Amino acid sequence: MSNEREISTSAKIKHLAKKIVDEIKKHENPSLNIPVRSLSNVHFNETKSIIELGKAVQKRNFFNVSQAKKFMQTLLIASACQELLKEGKTTSIRDLYYMTKHTLGNTKQNTFDDQTESDPIIEDLEVAIDALREELNLFASNRGALVGNIKIEDSGDLINCAKMGSGGWSVPSIVEKDVVKFKEVKANFILMVEKDAVWRRLNEDKFWKKHKCILVHGQGMAPRGVRRLLYRLVHEKKLPLYVFVDNDPWGFYIYSVIKQGSINLAYESQRMAVPSARFLGLSSFDREKYKLPDNVTIKLNDQDKSRAKQILQYPWFQKKGWQKEIKEMLKSGVKLELEALSAKGISFVTEKYLPEKIKKNQYLD
Amino acid sequence: MSNEREISTSAKIKHLAKKIVDEIKKHENPSLNIPVRSLSNVHFNETKSIIELGKAVQKRNFFNVSQAKKFMQTLLIASACQELLKEGKTTSIRDLYYMTKHTLGNTKQNTFDDQTESDPIIEDLEVAIDALREELNLFASNRGALVGNIKIEDSGDLINCAKMGSGGWSVPSIVEKDVVKFKEVKANFILMVEKDAVWRRLNEDKFWKKHKCILVHGQGMAPRGVRRLLYRLVHEKKLPLYVFVDNDPWGFYIYSVIKQGSINLAYESQRMAVPSARFLGLSSFDREKYKLPDNVTIKLNDQDKSRAKQILQYPWFQKKGWQKEIKEMLKSGVKLELEALSAKGISFVTEKYLPEKIKKNQYLD
Repeated sequence: MSNEREISTSAKIKHLAKKIVDEIKKHENPSLNIPVRSLSNVHFNETKSIIELGKAVQKRNFFNVSQAKKFMQTLLIASACQELLKEGKTTSIRDLYYMTKHTLGNTKQNTFDDQTESDPIIEDLEVAIDALREELNLFASNRGALVGNIKIEDSGDLINCAKMGSGGWSVPSIVEKDVVKFKEVKANFILMVEKDAVWRRLNEDKFWKKHKCILVHGQGMAPRGVRRLLYRLVHEKKLPLYVFVDNDPWGFYIYSVIKQGSINLAYESQRMAVPSARFLGLSSFDREKYKLPDNVTIKLNDQDKSRAKQILQYPWFQKKGWQKEIKEMLKSGVKLELEALSAKGISFVTEKYLPEKIKKNQYLD
Repeated sequence: MSNEREISTSAKIKHLAKKIVDEIKKHENPSLNIPVRSLSNVHFNETKSIIELGKAVQKRNFFNVSQAKKFMQTLLIASACQELLKEGKTTSIRDLYYMTKHTLGNTKQNTFDDQTESDPIIEDLEVAIDALREELNLFASNRGALVGNIKIEDSGDLINCAKMGSGGWSVPSIVEKDVVKFKEVKANFILMVEKDAVWRRLNEDKFWKKHKCILVHGQGMAPRGVRRLLYRLVHEKKLPLYVFVDNDPWGFYIYSVIKQGSINLAYESQRMAVPSARFLGLSSFDREKYKLPDNVTIKLNDQDKSRAKQILQYPWFQKKGWQKEIKEMLKSGVKLELEALSAKGISFVTEKYLPEKIKKNQYLD
């Protein structure tokens, strides 16, 4: 183990294991307490403005025919993570599946038959010991990049994000404090863009230089590494965060996951959600405001419409501005991609749209 | 225009336009000559060992009811690219679609109805003027990363790829000489890995440091930027290139695209294919050689089997070694992912598998 985070996560696993050893010694039925991750135990915390896990906990017993296998699997995953932490190595959840898959004794019974079995067990372990998978040295796929007025130390290497050429710094999946350190931040805000193509337009136009900001993209839905990084930047450096997504229900959803977290992974919200995030666009009202030609709009399909109606009901979209926004989309019957702004000129987004919106505080939150 | 490449590509477009203007002045039917991109005009060049476009050319006339629209679209795309080159700006093919989409006069006729119409026109232009889309300032999605003993200048910024932390240098889509320059290369070979998770294992273990190499991944099928970069590294720096992919027909195909190019984009081979590329693994024979447990194998499904039989017939897979390799996969009925090696220990791939294979020249080419 090379750092405090690994030591502390490892201690949490040890604590879990110790409880079980104690129960065995006392001839009790060994058990694990696992917070329930189903919808019934998820709610929107109005005060904190994040989607949270409730207090319901499920007991997983060793002496229980229907629970014994999962009990064993949970300990197996915990033990593999403990190994990773000890060696100071990180790996993917796919790799962890292969590391822990084996056939039991002389039976034909495998510990896991495929990865769909091991993934939920990892989530169980995360909630059981209150540690993100990244804290367990598990990484997800790398996606997203960053440029701007910030120097970052990544695994001991100092990276000047103002000198990263056209590609930018590839945001790693694990951005915990021991891996990623913010060394010098000279930015006034963070701009998070859904699409890498638009991010590259902004990077090429040196938007971040002129407007002193940090420019991030997540290549679609923001991956965990990017969300955790945004969380850390906002909390540690007190920077405002603007989000710039397609004008469709999917874009709105990407924004809301960054802001409030998601229902599926509610237990992560407290360490990933950024309730202060601001939605900059594309707004359904931009079409008229910027006189975008009709032929760049795309008709809402049935899926879009039902998704829009669905998010209209979400507690975290109840603010007046958002209700107006979503209703306008449904009324107009069309959606817009970020690239639609290029119909007004290739650098319209850099030179007019974004600076104006930011200057005039034209955002939804 | 800021550089030689932009000037030269722009001159090619001008040349195309001049021909048409001349024809108009001579009251001839204006036409474009477009090399045929269909399968009938694609063949495997045994001498060069790449998949190439043949010599068949199609005339696209203005005065021809069935060709007039495409003729107009081709000039429209050419003119938009000329604009990009003039301004020294780059953009995505999606963006180009929006930039060139408009409604004609008072009709309801759009220049393009959707992107599936503009994309093939871009390919037409590429072959017509013999320029890659990257030379036309068009980029594809950014994928893939690089670390290792090399310093690279990217858009004027010097990037030391030995100091890139856990994420590495994100390989841009456009890596032409005016954008990306190799400044200092102290590597003995290049290792191209299909999967980013395995790349990260190797990066964390500092494989590239110990073995003095450049470590690249393409997050699945190698994207154009990565292929062009590999081509340039191999040709300009005379480095051997090893490819490390899953043991399945898809992995073999990824290797073959890097090596010979693809049928769909045969016209790019001459500037992207690396015929000297070597296949390092996973080989179907590795299962026995490294005593991998049976439960990490995955059964070939019907699609795998028919794909394997298909590539068995490809002219570029006719070498003895490859025939043996593919037949062994079909015989065994199973495939293997790179991660399967982790069953032998998390750093087995770094410490044993790869060093041994490279040292003993155990590759297929």
